[in-house]
Amino acid sequence: MHDLLCEEWASYGVFYKYQPIDLVRKYFGEKIGLYFAWLGVYTQMLIPASIVGIIVFLYGCATVDENIPSMEMCDQRNNITMCPLCDRTCSYWKMSSACATARASHLFDNPATVFFSVFMALWAATFMEHWKRKQMRLNYRWDLTGFEEEEDHPRAEYEAKVLEKSLRREYKHKETDKEKLTWKDRFPAYFTNFVGILFMVGLTFAIVFGVIIYRISTAAALAISSTPSGRSSVRVTVTATAVIINLVVIIILDEVYGCIARWLTQIEVPKTDKNFEERLIFKAFLLKFVNAYTPIFYVAFFKGRFVGRPGDYVYIFHSFRMEECAPGGCLMELCIQLSIIMLGKQLIQNNLFEIGIPKMKKFIRYMKLKRRRSLDHEEHVKKKQRYEVDYNLEPFAGLTPEYMEMIIQFGFVTLFVASFPLAPLFALLNNIIEIRLDAKKFVTELRRPVAVRAKDIGIWYNILRGIGKLAVIINAFVISFTSDFIPRLVYLYMYSENGTMHGFVNHTLSSFNVSDFQAGTAPNDPMDLGYEVQICRYKDYREPPWSENKYDISKDFWAVLAARLAFVIVFQNLVMFMSDFVDWIIPDIPKDISQQIHKEKVLMVEVFMREEQGKLQMLETWKDKDTKKGENCNSHSPRLSKSHSGSLSSCHSYPVDV
Amino acid sequence: MHDLLCEEWASYGVFYKYQPIDLVRKYFGEKIGLYFAWLGVYTQMLIPASIVGIIVFLYGCATVDENIPSMEMCDQRNNITMCPLCDRTCSYWKMSSACATARASHLFDNPATVFFSVFMALWAATFMEHWKRKQMRLNYRWDLTGFEEEEDHPRAEYEAKVLEKSLRREYKHKETDKEKLTWKDRFPAYFTNFVGILFMVGLTFAIVFGVIIYRISTAAALAISSTPSGRSSVRVTVTATAVIINLVVIIILDEVYGCIARWLTQIEVPKTDKNFEERLIFKAFLLKFVNAYTPIFYVAFFKGRFVGRPGDYVYIFHSFRMEECAPGGCLMELCIQLSIIMLGKQLIQNNLFEIGIPKMKKFIRYMKLKRRRSLDHEEHVKKKQRYEVDYNLEPFAGLTPEYMEMIIQFGFVTLFVASFPLAPLFALLNNIIEIRLDAKKFVTELRRPVAVRAKDIGIWYNILRGIGKLAVIINAFVISFTSDFIPRLVYLYMYSENGTMHGFVNHTLSSFNVSDFQAGTAPNDPMDLGYEVQICRYKDYREPPWSENKYDISKDFWAVLAARLAFVIVFQNLVMFMSDFVDWIIPDIPKDISQQIHKEKVLMVEVFMREEQGKLQMLETWKDKDTKKGENCNSHSPRLSKSHSGSLSSCHSYPVDV
Repeated sequence: MHDLLCEEWASYGVFYKYQPIDLVRKYFGEKIGLYFAWLGVYTQMLIPASIVGIIVFLYGCATVDENIPSMEMCDQRNNITMCPLCDRTCSYWKMSSACATARASHLFDNPATVFFSVFMALWAATFMEHWKRKQMRLNYRWDLTGFEEEEDHPRAEYEAKVLEKSLRREYKHKETDKEKLTWKDRFPAYFTNFVGILFMVGLTFAIVFGVIIYRISTAAALAISSTPSGRSSVRVTVTATAVIINLVVIIILDEVYGCIARWLTQIEVPKTDKNFEERLIFKAFLLKFVNAYTPIFYVAFFKGRFVGRPGDYVYIFHSFRMEECAPGGCLMELCIQLSIIMLGKQLIQNNLFEIGIPKMKKFIRYMKLKRRRSLDHEEHVKKKQRYEVDYNLEPFAGLTPEYMEMIIQFGFVTLFVASFPLAPLFALLNNIIEIRLDAKKFVTELRRPVAVRAKDIGIWYNILRGIGKLAVIINAFVISFTSDFIPRLVYLYMYSENGTMHGFVNHTLSSFNVSDFQAGTAPNDPMDLGYEVQICRYKDYREPPWSENKYDISKDFWAVLAARLAFVIVFQNLVMFMSDFVDWIIPDIPKDISQQIHKEKVLMVEVFMREEQGKLQMLETWKDKDTKKGENCNSHSPRLSKSHSGSLSSCHSYPVDV
Repeated sequence: MHDLLCEEWASYGVFYKYQPIDLVRKYFGEKIGLYFAWLGVYTQMLIPASIVGIIVFLYGCATVDENIPSMEMCDQRNNITMCPLCDRTCSYWKMSSACATARASHLFDNPATVFFSVFMALWAATFMEHWKRKQMRLNYRWDLTGFEEEEDHPRAEYEAKVLEKSLRREYKHKETDKEKLTWKDRFPAYFTNFVGILFMVGLTFAIVFGVIIYRISTAAALAISSTPSGRSSVRVTVTATAVIINLVVIIILDEVYGCIARWLTQIEVPKTDKNFEERLIFKAFLLKFVNAYTPIFYVAFFKGRFVGRPGDYVYIFHSFRMEECAPGGCLMELCIQLSIIMLGKQLIQNNLFEIGIPKMKKFIRYMKLKRRRSLDHEEHVKKKQRYEVDYNLEPFAGLTPEYMEMIIQFGFVTLFVASFPLAPLFALLNNIIEIRLDAKKFVTELRRPVAVRAKDIGIWYNILRGIGKLAVIINAFVISFTSDFIPRLVYLYMYSENGTMHGFVNHTLSSFNVSDFQAGTAPNDPMDLGYEVQICRYKDYREPPWSENKYDISKDFWAVLAARLAFVIVFQNLVMFMSDFVDWIIPDIPKDISQQIHKEKVLMVEVFMREEQGKLQMLETWKDKDTKKGENCNSHSPRLSKSHSGSLSSCHSYPVDV
């Protein structure tokens, strides 16, 4: 069977086949079987998602040349002079120099992505339903329909704590009747947990903030040194390095947070193993989620929002100006951030950690073994037993890390899909490897784990649901606030003269009179462009210098903001309604299965009835035989009647309680 | 038992007691028992809601004198001249003349209502959870935990249709294997349904529109005739009459729609009675919901939004100006509308229809009977049998109308609660009567219905859930768009000089230069107020006449709109999150019940095991006795072993399938 699994399941050659789930369940037990079944369903569902994602991406590529805004930005003729991106050292720059980013950002910032994020929300709902049905099917096939896990025994730690408490009680001559931990006993642990988690989250925020500072300062530094030509490359280098730092931090903290979550759960002393696992998972998920998504949230919703305006910039530490997004909008940077973190995380964590580390450990163990063996020779002679060989394998560490990895990936696929339609594709590619990788690991690298029964994937399902719900609102905000979708619509229907996008870029830029620069913030070498600059432009909706209350937030700003918020409301409610609808039309239990279960119940009731009748008749016949045949049978009738009455009662209570 | 029910349940004397649900269930069956249990839980849950509602209302009453906006409106000193409410005939009017409505509207338009609508959303969630638990409890107490309704037989109409179809098939010499109605057969029925429902909804809208026209025209007419002094009363009279018309129409259409829904469902030919009931309920609910709430929706969200502005009003049929809301805001009118429709509907439908009509029918039957009896005397002599007497009672018409009434009421309680915090109180008062009224009806007025088993209240639960969800978003919109809550906040934090509400009224009014009136729309007797009017004010955010683009929508408008939309997003997501949280922390099955069920299952398995062992032993003993005792026992051993093996198999399959 082991070999069968090896060749039919744990080899990359069969990646295109369905997994032999029943075999896996036979060999590893239901719990692990369910994990691989879930992974299979998820991967399978990723195929349509990634296909649509590719189409959306290709649509972006195809339409990049018809896209008027980016064309206007790239157009050398209308040379819009932009205000400097940093004080003093930076000079004015031509809009057309940001042509590349503008064109690139169109790949992800086009109407198709709106459709795609709606699609992905429905996809998530469908996936959940599909999995419920699959799970039900497996439950039936694996005889779990009637199985509910009996409340398992308290953990040793818990017992110890209770005992110790009761001893303390007795010592204090108090009543010792109630042998359980009250909220009072648990309070310190809960408090520690709360504080600990808060601290960790704060730490994550602090690190992200630190990276921001790094980005700002290095950008300024590079801007000073670099030649005007190399100035455009500054942004790219800085962004890339910053993201890589983020990535490294995330991967390190992931491990740290794992340990911390475990520690926090241990001091909490949950009652049963089930509790322990659930709480551990919840904490670990919370921490890792915050850890993985904070930088992305920053780029999506906060970066470049609090820049201030030329002449009145916002400074942190009185020295660094808040960073702005590239002229193409923040969506491009969000996309870079997403892709690097997602890919990097997957490549490093999955492949390096999941292949490299175990192999290394194995090697170390092997070396140890050889050294010992070299010491004593008689062992060396005789053939080793199977269990001895297996003992050298890595012990089984539980499914939590496997699930966690997939759930975080699910987050990448759904949460920000509006800004990165290729996410499902990358997830799919990763998972196709991941399945066989995990299979290999379970079959060859790890000691065979003890089989555990389970009806479902437990708390993970709820977490998936939560992510699905969160995805709707986040995508709504990404589309309406991060992308330029809404401003374009507003321009098209409120301001455009000829019903085209011509003049959109100009409309999104406000003017600034150079003479209004604060002292010492004006660029040092304004003659950079070769002509005197009176008016520079910046991306914001503000009153022009010649209006009576200049540089105030303009009417357009509020109009666009209202449109954005309206879009969020419409999008969210529409998508939620549609997902509920999907949820409603797809029945949780496949029809055939429910019919089958129903039929079996009816059948069983019949069997019992027939049997009871048989017993009754039998009883009669024996009865009169006894009367005929005197005492040598009598001895048995009591038990007979007893068992019979017992069975009768049980039989009658039967159709009720089933 | 009947008498017991009469005195313990079906009498107003015991309104403060819990209902004897178990008795009801014994006498009427589970289905009706569940209805009354649900009604009881609902009424009980209404108590806290109505208490909080009263407190909120009292808060409004208490703070009405500190309310600066209404004080400013009532202040005679700052006499703001408002633009005429209708063309020509209406003259300018003083803001202070709308003092009463302003003060009244504060009762419902204050911060407390915001809190209250949040509270009611959570209340609804709690109610659903509470009912789920109660239902589970009853299921257990009534031995329904294992009961699932077997798929009941097709209805006769369905069978007939199928038969007829198959005959047609044979006539056409087609294969007659599949004996079911395909989508193709059903299409015309579905189409009729779709069109019919659309038509009905359209009819409702048309009627509401007609009432609007009536209101506008009569308002104009009355304005012409009435003296300046009586002008203020015009609005009240017109509103009141219009609402009463609405009410009457609603009540009539309710009955009509009930019949139409039934007819539509009949032509649809659903397969089973269950299907029939569900579809009927769904249609009837849809129609009655639209019917009951359309006028309210109009007042809440559309009235006074499309008025246009002085000098450029919006006209329907080129003659009638769109109606505006009272200066106090539309919330007051919404409140009037709600209270009249809700109370009127309850009083008329419940009391008149539910008491009057049955009594009348009974009387008619009684008269018929007497006439017949007068004809033949010999009947007159002998005592009548019980069943003869009962035959004179009204036949049982099903629970649908009872539920429907309550669900619509639930809608009144939750959907617009932000504008009418007393709704729960009125609902509570109504239900306290309603319970005993229905009880009386069921016990004394109706023929005793056939007892039906049921696990739950079926589709009604989903409808309740839907209303609960809808309530969140509707209340969000009522607060942010119908009430002046958001504009006040915006004024307080963006415009107010001294951080108070002083000047708010002035800020919400735009100015209009009288000389800009279109020809023939200016008031005929402008000297009404006793002084020459250059500038009149109207409630809107528009540019003043002296700005370069005069009467354009101003920046404030967009700012306020953005704030309103932002509030909707925050409110909706916050409340949804909180309700999900409530949903999550309250377990669906009470702990004691689940433990009890689990225990029983374990017990039963044990019983079966013991019994099987007993049988085995018994078998052994009989076996060897047979061998000892020759053939006269043999005849029985086959059946014995058979039944025994059968029981064994069933026993082993038992712990799996239960």
